[in-house]
Amino acid sequence: MQQQMGVRDQALSARGAARRLRGLSRAHKDAALGSIATELLEAEAAISEANQKDLQAAHAAGLSPAMIDRLEMGPKALRATVEGVRYVMTLPDPVGSRREMQRLQNGLLVGRERIPLGVIAMIYESRPNVTVDAAALCLKSGNACLLRGGKEAFHTNIALGRVIERALSLAGVPSSAVQIVPATDRAGIGELLSLTGLIDLAIPRGGEGLIRYVHEVARVPTVEHFKGVCHLYVDEDADLDLALRLVENSKLQRPGVCNALECLLVHRDIAPRFAPLLETLPGLELRACARMLPMLGAASPAGLDEWGVEYLAPVLGVKMVDDLESALDHVSEYGSNHTEAICTRNYERAERWVREVDASCVVVNASTRFNDGGQLGLGAEIGISTSKLHAYGPMGLESLTTEKWVVLGSGQVRA
Amino acid sequence: MQQQMGVRDQALSARGAARRLRGLSRAHKDAALGSIATELLEAEAAISEANQKDLQAAHAAGLSPAMIDRLEMGPKALRATVEGVRYVMTLPDPVGSRREMQRLQNGLLVGRERIPLGVIAMIYESRPNVTVDAAALCLKSGNACLLRGGKEAFHTNIALGRVIERALSLAGVPSSAVQIVPATDRAGIGELLSLTGLIDLAIPRGGEGLIRYVHEVARVPTVEHFKGVCHLYVDEDADLDLALRLVENSKLQRPGVCNALECLLVHRDIAPRFAPLLETLPGLELRACARMLPMLGAASPAGLDEWGVEYLAPVLGVKMVDDLESALDHVSEYGSNHTEAICTRNYERAERWVREVDASCVVVNASTRFNDGGQLGLGAEIGISTSKLHAYGPMGLESLTTEKWVVLGSGQVRA
Repeated sequence: MQQQMGVRDQALSARGAARRLRGLSRAHKDAALGSIATELLEAEAAISEANQKDLQAAHAAGLSPAMIDRLEMGPKALRATVEGVRYVMTLPDPVGSRREMQRLQNGLLVGRERIPLGVIAMIYESRPNVTVDAAALCLKSGNACLLRGGKEAFHTNIALGRVIERALSLAGVPSSAVQIVPATDRAGIGELLSLTGLIDLAIPRGGEGLIRYVHEVARVPTVEHFKGVCHLYVDEDADLDLALRLVENSKLQRPGVCNALECLLVHRDIAPRFAPLLETLPGLELRACARMLPMLGAASPAGLDEWGVEYLAPVLGVKMVDDLESALDHVSEYGSNHTEAICTRNYERAERWVREVDASCVVVNASTRFNDGGQLGLGAEIGISTSKLHAYGPMGLESLTTEKWVVLGSGQVRA
Repeated sequence: MQQQMGVRDQALSARGAARRLRGLSRAHKDAALGSIATELLEAEAAISEANQKDLQAAHAAGLSPAMIDRLEMGPKALRATVEGVRYVMTLPDPVGSRREMQRLQNGLLVGRERIPLGVIAMIYESRPNVTVDAAALCLKSGNACLLRGGKEAFHTNIALGRVIERALSLAGVPSSAVQIVPATDRAGIGELLSLTGLIDLAIPRGGEGLIRYVHEVARVPTVEHFKGVCHLYVDEDADLDLALRLVENSKLQRPGVCNALECLLVHRDIAPRFAPLLETLPGLELRACARMLPMLGAASPAGLDEWGVEYLAPVLGVKMVDDLESALDHVSEYGSNHTEAICTRNYERAERWVREVDASCVVVNASTRFNDGGQLGLGAEIGISTSKLHAYGPMGLESLTTEKWVVLGSGQVRA
């Protein structure tokens, strides 16, 4: 049984599978995904039963309704998850394409070929659908994966893992290509993250505590997403009605997500006209700087540590700035390299914003909520990176691959 | 004086410079490179003088002639280094290009823009030319850099740093864009590598001891190049004269480099014919497996730990394999993901080698020595990565950049 192997043995077994996966055709990988979809639906009863155990334990432990909601993997949630797998089948296979193959003077044909990374470790919290989503994306991109979900979803994940294992075997793919790492405590994560040379990339998904822990202990490469402190700068030439719509959508459409707006920067010249509009937004708590405060009757004064905070709630910091330069300074100091937007009709300042802001996504005259793999056309997203190495922003299938050099010769040697 | 700042202050100052560098035009960056070239030549006497101090200390400390040779930065070495800077001026600027800008159904124009990484830390050993090479490549790609060379080159690096600082100021570029981190001991490297959030990428260049140390202590992202254990598989359908030329060039043209050949895999059917050819290569010490040994009169038997060794010397492991599959198994077990070559006239096996070998560079019918930034058309190389994240293989200017998402809207919000 996979579950009784040590994590090092699991990783070794995953490396063996990764070698096989590298050579699979798209058709074979899609057939394996189809097998996973079919088998998951077949196993609906067993999965629901396992999920009930986790839900009962969650109720008994007094978990919050939001946490319990995330754990849910009944028939409806399972069918949505299966739809996700079928959608991944429709996405193009990123592996195997070559680019910039060029003939050098000595006759060598050289260029790059896109290849899977190898073995991916996912470390995540309660949502069991991540187990299936990650398995599908890793498989499609030719990677083996080790999936280490939260202990709250232990029984559900083990049940999902068994089904996936069977589905892979039925499709003629090594079942060790997708392995559940049984969740015990954080020490287990530490062991997984210390497997230098066996794991090519670790992707943590969860709260800031988990991400920081992974960053502290990992000896294998990771991509990280610490937090989303997103700003909108309302320029002196902004269409104020548009600016208001952007605030409303960016902040209030779904306040608890990482691409929600946290801080508004308002040019001093339009602040007196924009402040009353801002106060028309229902259910929004404003925390204003000393210069904005007199214009915003219902706002409370910003605290000393107000800037750079990720509220994940219908709360918005509001700060007056003198010009674009001051806005850029603020974003540079307090932003989290996630999503930074400007609202303006001025061509030059829009261009400067796009060029000079260092964030995974820079936005002009649109909601910050568009920084999302699905919205940006990636098809599916395995995570989002606010670190700049390898991937910056939403990570789709291509982010699970890399490129190697190919040198095709006819006897060339170096002089 | 830069040299008296703490390394954290240096990194903060580099971040400030990085913000300015992001917005510089290619012309401005090239002018700064031109200024560096001119000022280095102007300062030839001062640099030679500083270099003499390091050379004298090296002689006094009894360093090997090879080490002393690497330290040398007299007028001739300086002029070669300056030529390198002028060459970087001719390379295209990787920054600012956009790719795959596409119009979504909602009218948003989205895609990716290539941007500098930000602040690069280089950790290297004795060669002072790396100081100038790295400064030029980082500057051209819009990155600030912290350069931490070996203590053997202390005086030379400080002198080069002063000249670069002046040259940048003359060209209107913040002088903190290129900073020398004074070499003291390894603890200093540890401090530099702990600056999470201030350093975007650390690149170690040097012996395996340095690379392992960096891997152990780094809390910032790194790309690593552990070692080059390169193989050549001589297939049953190989042109044996060609195979011999490839062995000679791969192993003997420059045995002490990472893309030199370390182990030859010989198909059993052609081994009896190839062995006598192999023995014609002068100055080559062979270490043969038990099956090859009887055919190679002058070879010594391979030791128990012979496979996977990086000799960096005119020594070659030789092993007989039964087929391509066995060769792939050997490379998978003992290779270092660096460079792996096949010699064959068979189309299918050449294709399988290219596809199934996991290495930064896979080669057909050419020397392993071609895995090199200059040879592959990158123009210049700042290092070579055998880890797969972000860069795999030789790293040119593009490897010092990343991509951010650009979202150009006209009032779009999420439904």
